[in-house]
Amino acid sequence: MSGTNSERQLIAEGPAIILVEPQLGENIGMVARAMANFGLAELRLVNPRDGWPSEKARAAASKADHVIDQTTVYETLDDAIRDLNFVYATTARERYGFKPVRAPVIAASTLREKFRAGEKTGILFGRERWGLTNEEVALADEIVTFPVNPAFASLNIAQAVLLMSYEWMKTGLEDVSATPFQPVEQRPSTKEQVFGLFEHLEEALDARGYFHPPAKKPKMIDNLRAVISRRGFSEQEISVLRGVISSLDRFPRRWPKKPESEREKPENDDV
Amino acid sequence: MSGTNSERQLIAEGPAIILVEPQLGENIGMVARAMANFGLAELRLVNPRDGWPSEKARAAASKADHVIDQTTVYETLDDAIRDLNFVYATTARERYGFKPVRAPVIAASTLREKFRAGEKTGILFGRERWGLTNEEVALADEIVTFPVNPAFASLNIAQAVLLMSYEWMKTGLEDVSATPFQPVEQRPSTKEQVFGLFEHLEEALDARGYFHPPAKKPKMIDNLRAVISRRGFSEQEISVLRGVISSLDRFPRRWPKKPESEREKPENDDV
Repeated sequence: MSGTNSERQLIAEGPAIILVEPQLGENIGMVARAMANFGLAELRLVNPRDGWPSEKARAAASKADHVIDQTTVYETLDDAIRDLNFVYATTARERYGFKPVRAPVIAASTLREKFRAGEKTGILFGRERWGLTNEEVALADEIVTFPVNPAFASLNIAQAVLLMSYEWMKTGLEDVSATPFQPVEQRPSTKEQVFGLFEHLEEALDARGYFHPPAKKPKMIDNLRAVISRRGFSEQEISVLRGVISSLDRFPRRWPKKPESEREKPENDDV
Repeated sequence: MSGTNSERQLIAEGPAIILVEPQLGENIGMVARAMANFGLAELRLVNPRDGWPSEKARAAASKADHVIDQTTVYETLDDAIRDLNFVYATTARERYGFKPVRAPVIAASTLREKFRAGEKTGILFGRERWGLTNEEVALADEIVTFPVNPAFASLNIAQAVLLMSYEWMKTGLEDVSATPFQPVEQRPSTKEQVFGLFEHLEEALDARGYFHPPAKKPKMIDNLRAVISRRGFSEQEISVLRGVISSLDRFPRRWPKKPESEREKPENDDV
């Protein structure tokens, strides 16, 4: 999906993403892109199989060059996390041990707290084929694991990075229900505007003999008003609806109606 | 990351994922995999550029065959959503209009409510290059958009599907902080066990003249106890620590200590 605006603020802060022995350059590139999408920028590679730099990684990063250009490479995981204060290990497999196991939402809020306190943090991701060894997990402070479909739990490495990056980004929002843009602002209609709509419509229908027999008119009006007012209209919507009623009420057709048999039918006519 | 257990329950329910004119089979496959990871199963394609079925899609789906095999193809978006009750359109670009714009967490909980009420729902995703047209967005009930880095907002289509699928899965959890496995259960230690640790360590240190000069002993003990008790230990941890103290206290070294100059130094000696 498009929507990037390169004049807007580039967010580039937060935990380091550490890939342990990643195999494919494409995956490293997709990791960089996922990080950039959610404001992370520090990528560290431990012993990448096909070396570094990688043109395949750069291509797959879809212009997340600020991440690719700053990527650092280490020979060992120890070296890659030496300067950090707190590290998560991601794993999909059950691990038996003493380390706390966290859901992504909890891990992300812990990382945000530590970030605000000035700590340097990181998240470890294992090899595409078989993840992290127990010895590698042992170097982390806590474990984070994803709430996946138990029968289909294998997450692609870039997808795993994306989810953690996304949860990280959300912890930086004041309100997770906030969206970057909003619909056109509309003022809710007043009751007077709603009554105007009722009267306009009812008069146009009455003039055509809609309320028949006359004894049923009050009940028919109740029903009609219930249908129309079930959801609250905005002022703009009332205005659109009154335009529709006026058009139907005041102007004759400009061409004759097609006979029933020639009209397009919806597929499920009985619905 | 590995961890799939094919004997576990396969979750396959929830909103349909509808891809409008997807271009690459690989992307369709990665979408299927992301859906399977988070328990979705119904994939609908509107006019896929390279036709259907697609061997590239199947390969990229990494065994999400239950999604690929049931994928349905439509000529128009109208046809693809005809049977649904409620539809979201995803978009990264700002759209001007009256439709409500939701964050993924809100959209997912709305979809879950409607699912529980028996409604059929769907989520529209646009073309890789330029998303959905305004006319396509107009067919949806509401818009969902992602909280991305404003300067790097372009999400891959499979990543966008992954995030919505993940948020959908989370709405089905009773507790978002729940994890599929937990660490070995540990009982918090009692104060008596902590006191035992203090005395054990202090006695071993005292026997070596650690508390020197004697006038400073009470203050040194205070500091030592503060260091040791800063975080709560479990019974198991106390037991591990007492084993360590016993070993240091009771047994002689089996080989002489290396002179300082021969020892390995950490890289940042000054830290």
